[in-house]
Amino acid sequence: MKKYFIALATLLTVSGSLCLAQTTQPAIIEDFKPSTLNQPGQEYPKVNSQGYARFMVAAPKAQSIKVSLGLGGRGGTTLVKDTGAYWSGTTEGPLDKGFHYYHLTIDGGVFNDPGAMNYYGSVRWESGIEIPAPDQDFYALKDVPHGNVQQILFPSKSTGTSRRAFVYTPPSYYKDQAKKYPVLYLQHGWGEDETAWANQGRANLIMDNLIAEGKIKPFIIVMTYGMTNDIKFGSLGRVDFTTPFQTVLVNELIPYVDTNFRTLSDQPHRAMAGLSMGGMETKIITMANLDKFAYIGLLSGGTFSMDDVNKTPGFKEKVKLAFVSFGSRELGNPRGGFGGGDPKENAEALKKAGINSVFYVSPETAHEFLSWRRSLHEMAPLLFKD
Amino acid sequence: MKKYFIALATLLTVSGSLCLAQTTQPAIIEDFKPSTLNQPGQEYPKVNSQGYARFMVAAPKAQSIKVSLGLGGRGGTTLVKDTGAYWSGTTEGPLDKGFHYYHLTIDGGVFNDPGAMNYYGSVRWESGIEIPAPDQDFYALKDVPHGNVQQILFPSKSTGTSRRAFVYTPPSYYKDQAKKYPVLYLQHGWGEDETAWANQGRANLIMDNLIAEGKIKPFIIVMTYGMTNDIKFGSLGRVDFTTPFQTVLVNELIPYVDTNFRTLSDQPHRAMAGLSMGGMETKIITMANLDKFAYIGLLSGGTFSMDDVNKTPGFKEKVKLAFVSFGSRELGNPRGGFGGGDPKENAEALKKAGINSVFYVSPETAHEFLSWRRSLHEMAPLLFKD
Repeated sequence: MKKYFIALATLLTVSGSLCLAQTTQPAIIEDFKPSTLNQPGQEYPKVNSQGYARFMVAAPKAQSIKVSLGLGGRGGTTLVKDTGAYWSGTTEGPLDKGFHYYHLTIDGGVFNDPGAMNYYGSVRWESGIEIPAPDQDFYALKDVPHGNVQQILFPSKSTGTSRRAFVYTPPSYYKDQAKKYPVLYLQHGWGEDETAWANQGRANLIMDNLIAEGKIKPFIIVMTYGMTNDIKFGSLGRVDFTTPFQTVLVNELIPYVDTNFRTLSDQPHRAMAGLSMGGMETKIITMANLDKFAYIGLLSGGTFSMDDVNKTPGFKEKVKLAFVSFGSRELGNPRGGFGGGDPKENAEALKKAGINSVFYVSPETAHEFLSWRRSLHEMAPLLFKD
Repeated sequence: MKKYFIALATLLTVSGSLCLAQTTQPAIIEDFKPSTLNQPGQEYPKVNSQGYARFMVAAPKAQSIKVSLGLGGRGGTTLVKDTGAYWSGTTEGPLDKGFHYYHLTIDGGVFNDPGAMNYYGSVRWESGIEIPAPDQDFYALKDVPHGNVQQILFPSKSTGTSRRAFVYTPPSYYKDQAKKYPVLYLQHGWGEDETAWANQGRANLIMDNLIAEGKIKPFIIVMTYGMTNDIKFGSLGRVDFTTPFQTVLVNELIPYVDTNFRTLSDQPHRAMAGLSMGGMETKIITMANLDKFAYIGLLSGGTFSMDDVNKTPGFKEKVKLAFVSFGSRELGNPRGGFGGGDPKENAEALKKAGINSVFYVSPETAHEFLSWRRSLHEMAPLLFKD
């Protein structure tokens, strides 16, 4: 277990810098538009149709401003000051499509871009920017019936406080007051929190659109904070953060949700999935609680090997789906190390053994949210098929 | 009407700088603790038992850093650099109790404090700080049953998009699936949005606590964005933003809420209240729709005079509560001008005329959120008495 943690921690650190799609850069097309994640009325940051990002920040007396996005390994994008108050600059190449966290380094201090909205990642509220993806339609806000995302505060004896979760209920939830729904417990990654899947993940819009297209049976999604203690990233391999979280999830949150929402509360109607660290947690918690979870998803957060299957009693009978996904740029990472063999080979071995094993690779994305939006979009139609 | 808008705009501008409780300053007690609104793990900003705030920010090569809080009219709090990377400073005097928006000016540019969480005000996500109030218990997160705050996306034909609102449902909402509830529509102020009342207003916790103490009959609160166009503060008196918002609220949101939640949808079970600009909107919209609203609250956002009563057919019969409140420091403002006479005298005149008129003053607060948290706390028990 310890080894597995460290391998993943290595993966995250390395893949975090893979932001650029290519190194030979095309000429920049001047069709920049404000990022869709800008604060109201803010023109910058802007993005163009190729995926370049352009930044502009006012700070008349600053000495230097850098943007953490661009060429991560080489220090991001350096802004240049005009003759007045404004600093500006454009990424050296196109960024990967989808959502990116970033921040400014102003005179050596870390601050957010006042033009952008903020998203919790890297254990801080970071600036966010959105590079339009060719398949952005599946997570767009459309004129379809919308489900709700509601904040619940559930009592947690094990941690001595009220804890927060967000619950997505499908559009039909309020129409038929008798109908009960299956539930997916969906976890964020390290440095993120329970806001991640709805804010940067757009999980609710992905669900609304899939439901409107008739591609899935509606289900509830529950998203809560996956840590009960503040653990530094470098300590992930040495400190057990999953056991206390398992207590919160299994003993406290699930009973609260089953009491306060109209759920189908038996094992065949409960799923768990998570991204990155949340995938690690998902694997550990579901393997220890196969009487409670039937569908399992690891998104950029580990794989299931035949060794896992063999050492987990009941795996073949109880696991109705073993979904594993990665961004394509993660798989190309020679230092990745997926803690238990090649994920694609693993997935194929499980399939041969008669397990409903599905392996998905998000094209041209790294360890970032477009990989996970797409993974949710791929996984959701496979859940609760029985 | 135009005159009324301009008078209030003047009020807001002036009262916004009244942050300091006093000008003769006591010796600083060194019992500083991290503000409860800090980002996870962040030590600064800190506040002490007297209400002083202390800031610390890393920016080794910056030339100057100022905090907008402190002595507003005199330029806030100037931070001083130590021999290393850190800038720090303490407000010249204690701040008013409660919530304050603020930002940093670094080398002439406006940025947020990386230590604090962000709250939407002044048409940007600002840093927030909380000075503990003597009565903070009424808005504290306690071990009581909690209601939910849910994001809804409702279709709006008049604005051609899905619009967002947050809906507070009381803890009992999911227990008895037959029970129906009255609804309060609760509006934010200028430069804020639909997140304000739950985030900085703590409306859900105020309600949870009042319900747990048996002081109110549970009701639903709906909070949505009160503008349909981006209007600069200086144009508030010249541009009609209330009419298009009234269309969204009355023709689109209310029917959506009444369809999708278990509401009591008749006039005696619907209230509207708002703070500052939201109070101005509340007055205009309720006066034009007395067949739909029975309880009305203006929080630092105007008053009801006998002139209003006389020129509004049905006022005496249909208005079950005319609640008006201000922060004490707003009333002392000689340039305030409440657009229609002294609010206390107005309230008394209405009472004499047989109207259920209630006037509340929040002690030692200005045009800020502690005034409005307290106003909600005072007003809620008066709603839906019939």
